[in-house]
Amino acid sequence: MKINVLTLFPDMFAPVQQSMLGRGLEDKKWNLNLINFRDFTSDIHHHVDDSPYGGGAGMVLQIMPIKKALDTIENKGKVIITAPQGKTFNQEMAREWAQEDNLTFICGHYEGFDYRIYDFVDEIVSIGDFVLTGGELPTMSMIDATVRLLPGVLGNAASPVDESFSHGLLEYPQYTRPADFEGKKVPEVLMSGNHQKIAEWRLKEALRMTYKKRPDMLAYRVLTAQEQKLLEEIKRES
Amino acid sequence: MKINVLTLFPDMFAPVQQSMLGRGLEDKKWNLNLINFRDFTSDIHHHVDDSPYGGGAGMVLQIMPIKKALDTIENKGKVIITAPQGKTFNQEMAREWAQEDNLTFICGHYEGFDYRIYDFVDEIVSIGDFVLTGGELPTMSMIDATVRLLPGVLGNAASPVDESFSHGLLEYPQYTRPADFEGKKVPEVLMSGNHQKIAEWRLKEALRMTYKKRPDMLAYRVLTAQEQKLLEEIKRES
Repeated sequence: MKINVLTLFPDMFAPVQQSMLGRGLEDKKWNLNLINFRDFTSDIHHHVDDSPYGGGAGMVLQIMPIKKALDTIENKGKVIITAPQGKTFNQEMAREWAQEDNLTFICGHYEGFDYRIYDFVDEIVSIGDFVLTGGELPTMSMIDATVRLLPGVLGNAASPVDESFSHGLLEYPQYTRPADFEGKKVPEVLMSGNHQKIAEWRLKEALRMTYKKRPDMLAYRVLTAQEQKLLEEIKRES
Repeated sequence: MKINVLTLFPDMFAPVQQSMLGRGLEDKKWNLNLINFRDFTSDIHHHVDDSPYGGGAGMVLQIMPIKKALDTIENKGKVIITAPQGKTFNQEMAREWAQEDNLTFICGHYEGFDYRIYDFVDEIVSIGDFVLTGGELPTMSMIDATVRLLPGVLGNAASPVDESFSHGLLEYPQYTRPADFEGKKVPEVLMSGNHQKIAEWRLKEALRMTYKKRPDMLAYRVLTAQEQKLLEEIKRES
């Protein structure tokens, strides 16, 4: 997969070039093409913004340099932009995007785009109900969520399947050494060696966590007979 | 405000040290203290993870080095951790956190924490329904959303008030030069010079955007008489 990013701050993209995603880049599991659209301005001062028609505080990102930068990309694939009015990004979108050969992200600045840019994009996406100074951080989150699903990126370290949101339940509690930390002990069943009991405990705790913290996730899930029984126990216990 | 971050990847924090947030750091409007909790391991190989009790794929972040790193911070303020079972981060939380003198974030790795760490945190927060390789990107998003609200960080460039989610509506469309871009024209009213008409157009388009894309936001809003009238027009028009 090749990912193009239009941004005024290419140096901000350090996080997706380190750790697992960085190894993925080295191993050519994916490709990152950072384009600074300030390079596509035509005025001598390389301005990318101008005051808004109709007046008001702040500046607006001009359409021209962004469109020119976009036009230089041969295989754009889906063109994605972050904006508050967009659909909220989720794991389902990451899974869909991970099937694509090319993706192109446009990162705004806190100032906002000239509205006509939206005519040139395929997807408007919001990362959540909060305001950021730019589109770089949400774009990197979307890149991270998507690229880690590509074959070979997570290596043997973990399967991307066995996780919250992927199987429709929050994860069960995990523990590692020491067995006793300042008086806080690991649940005994996990040290019992009884694999069936451990599996049942984990399923029950995943259900309990989901029931308590994200009951909305259970609404979308068809429960097995075992899950139904465990959920009844959880309800009685709480 | 001083922000402490416990992470295995301090170099990932480039994005919050550039642009507006970077200038805010230089101007001492806020302070960033990055702590690598790998420095608090006691074994010769500086392992921070171990296999989970009860078996299974993957590794679990040990509690010891994180707790030791936490104990070195004098003024921790709220201790915040990102996890899928947490409350979803939003602008309201950013506003609350912006009132604090100190905040401490703990960034996990895709592997997940020893569950006992949650006994040492004040807030468990999720950035949304998607899976990332680590807590660094969501933590930076939360830092960005919070720090940009601190006095003086955005400078005179823009008021952090006049924005989506802050005033309960999505933003109206903005335009800047050129007035005609490849046949796409700026709405005439914005070039009329009639300030009252421009203000009404903007309010109506903000309402229209919110009504079409995020009707849930209108449910929380007490509409003025003018807004009510405009919304009726929008409904008739659509």
